[in-house]
Amino acid sequence: MYSVGDSAEFTKVFSEEDVFLFAGITGDRNPVHTSKEFAAKTRFKERIAHGLLTAGTISAAIGMKLPGPGCLYLSQTLEFKAPVFLGDEITARVEIVEVISEKRLRIKTRCFNQDEVMVIDGEAVIVPPRRGEGDAVRKTNSSGERGTE
Amino acid sequence: MYSVGDSAEFTKVFSEEDVFLFAGITGDRNPVHTSKEFAAKTRFKERIAHGLLTAGTISAAIGMKLPGPGCLYLSQTLEFKAPVFLGDEITARVEIVEVISEKRLRIKTRCFNQDEVMVIDGEAVIVPPRRGEGDAVRKTNSSGERGTE
Repeated sequence: MYSVGDSAEFTKVFSEEDVFLFAGITGDRNPVHTSKEFAAKTRFKERIAHGLLTAGTISAAIGMKLPGPGCLYLSQTLEFKAPVFLGDEITARVEIVEVISEKRLRIKTRCFNQDEVMVIDGEAVIVPPRRGEGDAVRKTNSSGERGTE
Repeated sequence: MYSVGDSAEFTKVFSEEDVFLFAGITGDRNPVHTSKEFAAKTRFKERIAHGLLTAGTISAAIGMKLPGPGCLYLSQTLEFKAPVFLGDEITARVEIVEVISEKRLRIKTRCFNQDEVMVIDGEAVIVPPRRGEGDAVRKTNSSGERGTE
């Protein structure tokens, strides 16, 4: 059912609104994300998106496409390789690298910006949907299709 | 300036609104998070919060308290140990486990629910704020104080 090499991607632009909503729902109002004035004095000179917000594109690629609705997260590693600025278009690319069992998939999870710079590298282990679970939904979200949020 | 054993925590209740906002800003509308009907047929019987949303409390504890405003993420590992249901109160506990250098801290990052069940285990490596950066903000967010979002 699942094979090594199966892949999908999901793309999203991160706006100022996204960053402020993430700050609100998590409580992380670190001014590197929320304050233009503060950010101007940092190494990046402007505000950056929260790392876990950017990583949300991985969650979307996995949860909506590969393997899709019904799957559950067991683990995720995230290496933040480059900053994501407000307005950047981030594409998560996910690829099955090991079928551990019928109930465990290891997935390479990487995010790139609009200039093809890798901003996040990492790996997830997930539980795919149980047989029958989410099938109806998955039909409308074929793996490999490009996300348009 | 930073010592092994320094710790802080941050607490937040995750509401249905938080979950739907996270689904909106990331694109992860996996029905295990957003559909009561779908979730009723899953192993957990009800909707669960996104793992990366719950992990946001770690981001908040690090970004607001230890080491606080101005810090940057280099990496984060997340092991999802138990489900987080809507309405659960999650406390992130973060503790410095290694001062790698003046510019690198290794932090143990764990989240617990209101019943003291560990829901996330993991570790972060972060860059603390540069000298002078964020000092004014940090004064009002003393490390170790309990978050009230």
